[in-house]
Amino acid sequence: MNVERVSKVLNNLQKRDLSQALITDPMSIWYLTGYYTQPYERFFALYLAQTGKGITSALFCNRLFPDATGAADAVVTFDDTDDPIPLVAQATNHAATLGVDKNLAARWLVPLMRSGACAGVELCSFAVDEARSVKDAREQELMRQASLANDQAMAWLASQVHVGASERSIAEGLLGEYRSLGAQDHSFTPIVSFGDHAADPHHEPDDSVLAKGDMVLFDVGCRRDWYCSDMTRTFFTAQPTAHQLEVYDTVRRANEAAEKMVRPGVEFAQLDLTARKIIEDAGYGQYFTHRLGHQIGLEDHEPGDVSSTHHEPVQPGQCFSIEPGIYIPGDIGVRIEDLVIVTDDGCEVLNHYSKEPQVLDA
Amino acid sequence: MNVERVSKVLNNLQKRDLSQALITDPMSIWYLTGYYTQPYERFFALYLAQTGKGITSALFCNRLFPDATGAADAVVTFDDTDDPIPLVAQATNHAATLGVDKNLAARWLVPLMRSGACAGVELCSFAVDEARSVKDAREQELMRQASLANDQAMAWLASQVHVGASERSIAEGLLGEYRSLGAQDHSFTPIVSFGDHAADPHHEPDDSVLAKGDMVLFDVGCRRDWYCSDMTRTFFTAQPTAHQLEVYDTVRRANEAAEKMVRPGVEFAQLDLTARKIIEDAGYGQYFTHRLGHQIGLEDHEPGDVSSTHHEPVQPGQCFSIEPGIYIPGDIGVRIEDLVIVTDDGCEVLNHYSKEPQVLDA
Repeated sequence: MNVERVSKVLNNLQKRDLSQALITDPMSIWYLTGYYTQPYERFFALYLAQTGKGITSALFCNRLFPDATGAADAVVTFDDTDDPIPLVAQATNHAATLGVDKNLAARWLVPLMRSGACAGVELCSFAVDEARSVKDAREQELMRQASLANDQAMAWLASQVHVGASERSIAEGLLGEYRSLGAQDHSFTPIVSFGDHAADPHHEPDDSVLAKGDMVLFDVGCRRDWYCSDMTRTFFTAQPTAHQLEVYDTVRRANEAAEKMVRPGVEFAQLDLTARKIIEDAGYGQYFTHRLGHQIGLEDHEPGDVSSTHHEPVQPGQCFSIEPGIYIPGDIGVRIEDLVIVTDDGCEVLNHYSKEPQVLDA
Repeated sequence: MNVERVSKVLNNLQKRDLSQALITDPMSIWYLTGYYTQPYERFFALYLAQTGKGITSALFCNRLFPDATGAADAVVTFDDTDDPIPLVAQATNHAATLGVDKNLAARWLVPLMRSGACAGVELCSFAVDEARSVKDAREQELMRQASLANDQAMAWLASQVHVGASERSIAEGLLGEYRSLGAQDHSFTPIVSFGDHAADPHHEPDDSVLAKGDMVLFDVGCRRDWYCSDMTRTFFTAQPTAHQLEVYDTVRRANEAAEKMVRPGVEFAQLDLTARKIIEDAGYGQYFTHRLGHQIGLEDHEPGDVSSTHHEPVQPGQCFSIEPGIYIPGDIGVRIEDLVIVTDDGCEVLNHYSKEPQVLDA
């Protein structure tokens, strides 16, 4: 158990009058205990409580999971044929509200509420999310290393762009490249989009092959020592038209203006609005169809987005993406994305791959 | 919308006095509407109700998802910055209990219960699960084709077993092989285990390399035209010892005895107990640490397992795995798994790859 992190979480809970919580997100459990398993449909939970006597913790594990001895004060094990909910009810304070993770599935939550384990439930992921949102020095260094590998992977991706190559073939080669850069895995399914496929922000790589002149969008990230990277660059494969350059330049200006604004105290919403205004003023407002960015760390998408409705102030140690885009169906899609870490008086941009318009020799 | 499937689900709901349900499992929504998207953390739900006037349906989609026009009576769209719960509350019958999917996350369920959208919630996935569990003729043919590809992939895997090859390298080549066999993807992360790694039923492929004499376990499956396959074979790479052969033969006898018992009316538990008794009688009972099998279809693991606590009778059209194993830590792991489809008077075994003990020329 990481006592410092657990204490932070319990303090966050107490601010909202919660004395006990059931954490079920596997990555949050890793963050708090150092124990990781992917439970799939099986029950897996960390119970945390602040009592008069101090911190209590219990980890609920199926016996098929790797041994968790030592990961919490108590490790409670069970088989596939056991019902884990009564075991949880033996650990909880029945007279108090129980915090539950935002991802706790109804299959566990509905019987839990009926078991008498608690006086009611409240969502409590904010308590772990707030702790995870502010990265300590060690975590910041891991974020930096993951993005450094991603910068190098982007150079490799650019080198793979040739007439006749398919989106899928480039995407499928990326994992090997990440491995050779010291990363373990993708942090999300890579996006490789040729031509107007880039106008669908969530396009999945298919067997389409590159034609001379197609623009190419890469939105990729790796997981390296648990922490995630995430970056987007958009390339040309022929001299850009004035229209293409204008769209590209608008997105780039939006990206750079927002990054320049990042400092402690500025609202997340102000960052989104700054980038959005540049795109609106250029006449492309209707084509910027998503939020400006998302926080990132142990997961590619972490809570607390960079959007027009998020009015909390940015804090030192937070890490998030700045990724404006313009998507004109049937025509063009451009997105430019970096990760930033908030410093005491601004931010550190974690991605160093050039944002100059670049024509690849395809 | 597939009216026949939706009617089946609504009938199943009515048997438990439910007139409305919110389905959130993406694959269940595909099964009922033909529309698929992977929503990640975003809200995505199909509302179904049986009213005096007939069937009502509404699909709740983020505008970032592909266009869902026509997938339900009403398609209700929203942005990342909108709260979708009030939109759901506009569609539901506030005076009736609402069925909710087993995977509905607390982040949606807790506010839904507080929104006044319904008089209470009940888990209702059984209604879709029961419909999905019994495959129609078209689905059975797709299951057959997926397992046929898996048989062929197993032959390819066996051909890759050479001294010095790593678990990871073999596992990473499998996707390309599946693609060339007409499949689209893995149905789960492939298990490739050398030597005593096979004694951990959930071992993940690593950089370990094969040594002469290591046994090799492959537990792999593909998704082909939406439907999943799943098969395990265990191989030798040198003449087996008497102990190895005894363990292998015990597992094989357990697998074959259980398959022979499958017919409509037999309890799932009887299948598990039959296989388990053979392993216990051979003195290895403590090393068979999991249920005998699981149902399968659009997902690799579907509800209704083949275990000692599942006392419902097997029905024609159901499809599940028969996968006994013996796992002796530090020594040996053997599992042999086939998929079966229940017929009117027995079952059809979907896997045809030999179960004879096989010594590979590694």
